Amino acid sequence: MQFSAAELARRLDLAVHGDPDIRVSGVATLARATRASLGFLANPRYRPQLAETQAGIVVMGAADAEGYTGTALVATDPYVAFARAAALFEARVAPAPGIHASAAIDPAAVVHPGAQVGAFASIGARSVVESGAVLGPGCVVGEDCVVGADCELGARVTLVRRVRLGRRVLIHPGAVLGADGFGLAMDAGRWLKVPQLGGVVVGDDCEVGANTTIDRGALDDTVLEDDVRLDNQIQIGHNVHIGAHTAMAGCSAVAGSARIGRYCLIGGGAGVLGHLELCDRVIVTAMSLVTHSIREPGEYSSGTPLMDNRSWRKSAARFKQLDALARRLGALRDN
Amino acid sequence: MQFSAAELARRLDLAVHGDPDIRVSGVATLARATRASLGFLANPRYRPQLAETQAGIVVMGAADAEGYTGTALVATDPYVAFARAAALFEARVAPAPGIHASAAIDPAAVVHPGAQVGAFASIGARSVVESGAVLGPGCVVGEDCVVGADCELGARVTLVRRVRLGRRVLIHPGAVLGADGFGLAMDAGRWLKVPQLGGVVVGDDCEVGANTTIDRGALDDTVLEDDVRLDNQIQIGHNVHIGAHTAMAGCSAVAGSARIGRYCLIGGGAGVLGHLELCDRVIVTAMSLVTHSIREPGEYSSGTPLMDNRSWRKSAARFKQLDALARRLGALRDN
Amino acid sequence: MQFSAAELARRLDLAVHGDPDIRVSGVATLARATRASLGFLANPRYRPQLAETQAGIVVMGAADAEGYTGTALVATDPYVAFARAAALFEARVAPAPGIHASAAIDPAAVVHPGAQVGAFASIGARSVVESGAVLGPGCVVGEDCVVGADCELGARVTLVRRVRLGRRVLIHPGAVLGADGFGLAMDAGRWLKVPQLGGVVVGDDCEVGANTTIDRGALDDTVLEDDVRLDNQIQIGHNVHIGAHTAMAGCSAVAGSARIGRYCLIGGGAGVLGHLELCDRVIVTAMSLVTHSIREPGEYSSGTPLMDNRSWRKSAARFKQLDALARRLGALRDN
Repeated sequence: MQFSAAELARRLDLAVHGDPDIRVSGVATLARATRASLGFLANPRYRPQLAETQAGIVVMGAADAEGYTGTALVATDPYVAFARAAALFEARVAPAPGIHASAAIDPAAVVHPGAQVGAFASIGARSVVESGAVLGPGCVVGEDCVVGADCELGARVTLVRRVRLGRRVLIHPGAVLGADGFGLAMDAGRWLKVPQLGGVVVGDDCEVGANTTIDRGALDDTVLEDDVRLDNQIQIGHNVHIGAHTAMAGCSAVAGSARIGRYCLIGGGAGVLGHLELCDRVIVTAMSLVTHSIREPGEYSSGTPLMDNRSWRKSAARFKQLDALARRLGALRDN
Repeated sequence: MQFSAAELARRLDLAVHGDPDIRVSGVATLARATRASLGFLANPRYRPQLAETQAGIVVMGAADAEGYTGTALVATDPYVAFARAAALFEARVAPAPGIHASAAIDPAAVVHPGAQVGAFASIGARSVVESGAVLGPGCVVGEDCVVGADCELGARVTLVRRVRLGRRVLIHPGAVLGADGFGLAMDAGRWLKVPQLGGVVVGDDCEVGANTTIDRGALDDTVLEDDVRLDNQIQIGHNVHIGAHTAMAGCSAVAGSARIGRYCLIGGGAGVLGHLELCDRVIVTAMSLVTHSIREPGEYSSGTPLMDNRSWRKSAARFKQLDALARRLGALRDN
Repeated sequence: MQFSAAELARRLDLAVHGDPDIRVSGVATLARATRASLGFLANPRYRPQLAETQAGIVVMGAADAEGYTGTALVATDPYVAFARAAALFEARVAPAPGIHASAAIDPAAVVHPGAQVGAFASIGARSVVESGAVLGPGCVVGEDCVVGADCELGARVTLVRRVRLGRRVLIHPGAVLGADGFGLAMDAGRWLKVPQLGGVVVGDDCEVGANTTIDRGALDDTVLEDDVRLDNQIQIGHNVHIGAHTAMAGCSAVAGSARIGRYCLIGGGAGVLGHLELCDRVIVTAMSLVTHSIREPGEYSSGTPLMDNRSWRKSAARFKQLDALARRLGALRDN
C-alpha cells in the first residue's frame, strides 16, 4: 500500500506543501520515520523533532508548515488528519460470518447469519446477536442480552445478563458488563444482598477498555449514551448514567447512581462518589476525587504535587497542623 | 407475580398504612414507579420524590409514613425491608445439576452430582466441587481447590491453586483467586522470585466482585472470614487477613500481610499498606491511603478536597511551602 | 522431602550455627513454624517472634544469629536465602508437552512440539509458541504473536495481536496484552478512533500480574525490558517504555508514551502521567501521582497523611484557604 502526497491530500482534504509526488508506505513517529513514512506533528512537545525527522511527508498545522522545507500535509487539526491517514494503512480483517463449531449457543438465542461467533463462546437464552457483530474467542453472553449490528467484542468479553449494546460498540478483552451491582444492607449483624434487577444499556459507537467492569442497575438500568469512550480497568457502579461523548481514562471509577454529563473528560485513576451529578463539559484531572456535584463546566482537581519524599514528609506533617496554624495566624493578626 | 400490600406486610413482618388490598407486580425507584410498582424511601436524598411518586406501595420509615397519603409499608430499616421485598420479585434460575459436555475435568477431581459445571470449564487434579455449586462458562479451577456447597461462580472465574471456598460464596466474572503473591528479592542486580506456597481460604457467604484479584499466601494462607463482601476490581495481596462482615468498595486494595478487622468499611479506591493492622469497625473513606495501623474504631481519611483547577494550583503550590510557612509563623509569634 | 541444616547450608552456601543434623520438611513463618519447619527473619518487624518460634532452623543475618540459641543458617541477605530455600520445597509440575484436544489452533500458527497448550486455548494466524512454553486453559493468542521459550501463561491470558514475549516470561490469569491503546481525536463533536498500529515487546524473565493490562503502541511498540515485574491490576498505556529490573506494585498505572528507567520501584496505586520520563532508580511511594519528569534518583511522594475524619475535615478545609493564609502571613511579616 503506497500513497503519494497528492493522493493523501485528496483523500483527506488537505493542502500539500512541497513535493506532491513523494510516496509513503506507512506511518511512524517523527523520531522513527524513514523516507517511506508519513509522520505527524500534533503535540508541541515533539516540535524539536521536526528539524531532524527523516519522514517523507509530515502532517502538521499551518504555522509549523511555514518554515518547513520538506513535504507537508497542512491540516486544521493535524491529529485528526493523522488518525484518518493512519486508517488508510491499517490492515483490517473483514469479519468472517459464521459460528465456530465449538461455540455453545442456547436454543433460545438468535444469532444473525451475518454475525461471527468465535471459538468457545457461549450465548444464553433470549439473547440476540445482530448482523455484522463479531464475538471473539471465549466470549460469554448471558441471558436477555442484545449485541447490536457491527459490534466487536474482543476475546473473553462477558455480558452477564440484561445488557443491550447499540451499534458499532467496541469492547476489549476481559471486560465484564452486567455483573451484580454492589448492593448490601446490614441486617442484624450480617450483610443482606439487595437484588440487582436492572440491566446495562450502551449506546452506539461506545468503546469499553480491557478488564473494565460496568455493573447492571439495581432497579433502573446503568446507561452509557452514544460515543462514550472508556479506557482499561474502569469501574462503573450500578445505575450510573454517562452522557454522550464523555471519555474516561484508565483506572477511573464512578460509584453507584452518579450522573455524568456529556463531553466530560475524566482523568486516569480519578473517582466520582455515588449519587453525584456532573454537568456537561467537566474535566477532572488524574487521580482526583469528586466529592460533590459539579454544576459549572471547567477543570477540577484534588491531591497534592509530587515532591521528593523528605520534603513531602515535612509538608505532610504540617498538613495535620493546618487548622492550628490558621488559628494562630488569625490570633496574631487580631493582636 | 403479584402481591397485595397485606401479603407483603405479612411476608416481611411490616405494618401497612393505607390500602391493604392494592397490588403490585414489580419494584421500582420512586421516580420511575407506576401504580403497579413497589417503591422505597431509604436515602433522605430522595425524600422530595415521595410527593410525586406514582408507586402503588412505598416502603418507608415510621416518620415518613406519618404524613403520607398513599399506601406505605412501615419498616424499622426500609432498605433491608426493600431488599427482602425485591427478592420476592427476582426471577432466580435454579441450578441445573450436571457437567456440560465440553468441560475438561481432571480424572482426579471430584464433582458432586448435584453441582452444575458450565461450558468450557476446567477443573484440575484433587479439586472438589460440592453439592449445589454452580460454575459458569469458562471457569478454571486449578489443583487442590474446594468449591463449597451452593457456591456460585460466574463466567470465567479462576481459582489458580489451593483455593478453598466455604458455602454460598458468590464470585463474579473475571475474578482471579490464588494467583502468585508478589514476592521478590533483589539478588545481585536481578529479581529472584519468592515461591508462594500458601493458599486462599474464603469463609461462608462471601462475595467477590468482577475482575477482583486475591493472591495466595507466601507461606500461610490469605484469609477472608465469613460474610466478607468485596466489590469489583479489588486487589488483595498475599497473606492478607480480612475479618468477618467487612465490606470493601470497588478498586480498593490491601497490600501483603495486612490484617483488617471485622465490620470494617473500606471506601472505593482506598489503599492499605502492607503488614498493618486495622481493628474492628474502622471506616476508611474513598481514595484514602492507610499508612499506619489503626487501633481505634472510627472514620479515617486522607487527601484534599476537590477544587476548581485554578484555585487548586494555588493551594498545591503552597502545600510545597508548608513547612517554611509554619516556621515563619512560629518566628513571628516568638517576636 | 527433608533436608538437614548441613545440607541446606551446603546447597545455599550459608553458615550453620547450632545443630547441623536437625532436619526440616517444609517452610513456615516464625509464628506458625514447628520443629519440622524452616523459618526466616528478614523484616525487623518480626524480630520479637524469634524468641518464641518453634522453628527447627531459622535463616537470619549474622547480627541476629549472635545471641540465638537455636539452629540458624546465617545469610548476608536472609530474604534471598529463604527464597532459595523455599524453592527446594516447592512442588513444581513439569510441563506436559502437547496440545489439548479442544484447543483451536490456526493452520498458520506454529506450536513447538515441546510446548504445552491447555484446554479451550486459541492461537491465531502467524503466531509462534516456542519450546517449553505453557499456555493455561482458555488462553487466547491472537495474530502475529510470539510466546518465547519456557514462558508460562496462566489461565485465560490474552495476547491480542503483535505481542512478542521473550523467554521465561510469567503471566498470571486474566492479563490482557496488546489491546488497542486509548487513542482518540475529537472531530466535529464526535470521537475519532486513532488506529493502533504498534505492538508490545516484553523482555526475558518479566512477570505480569493477574488482570493487568498492557496496551499495544499506536505506532512504535510498548516495551518492557528484561526482568520487569508487574503485580496485579496494573495498567500500562500505549507506547510506554519500562526499563529493566523495574518493579511495580498492584493497581499502579502508567499513561501513554511515558518512559520509566531501570531499577525503579513504583508503589501500589501510584500513577505516572503520559509523555513523562523517569530516570533510573526512582522510587514512587504508594498512591502518589507523578506529574512531571524526574531526573534525579530518589524517593518521591504526593498525598496527605491519614487522619481521623474529624481532624482531616479541618485540615482539608484549610487546604482550600492555603494561598490566602500564606498571603496574610506575608503581609503580617512585612508590617
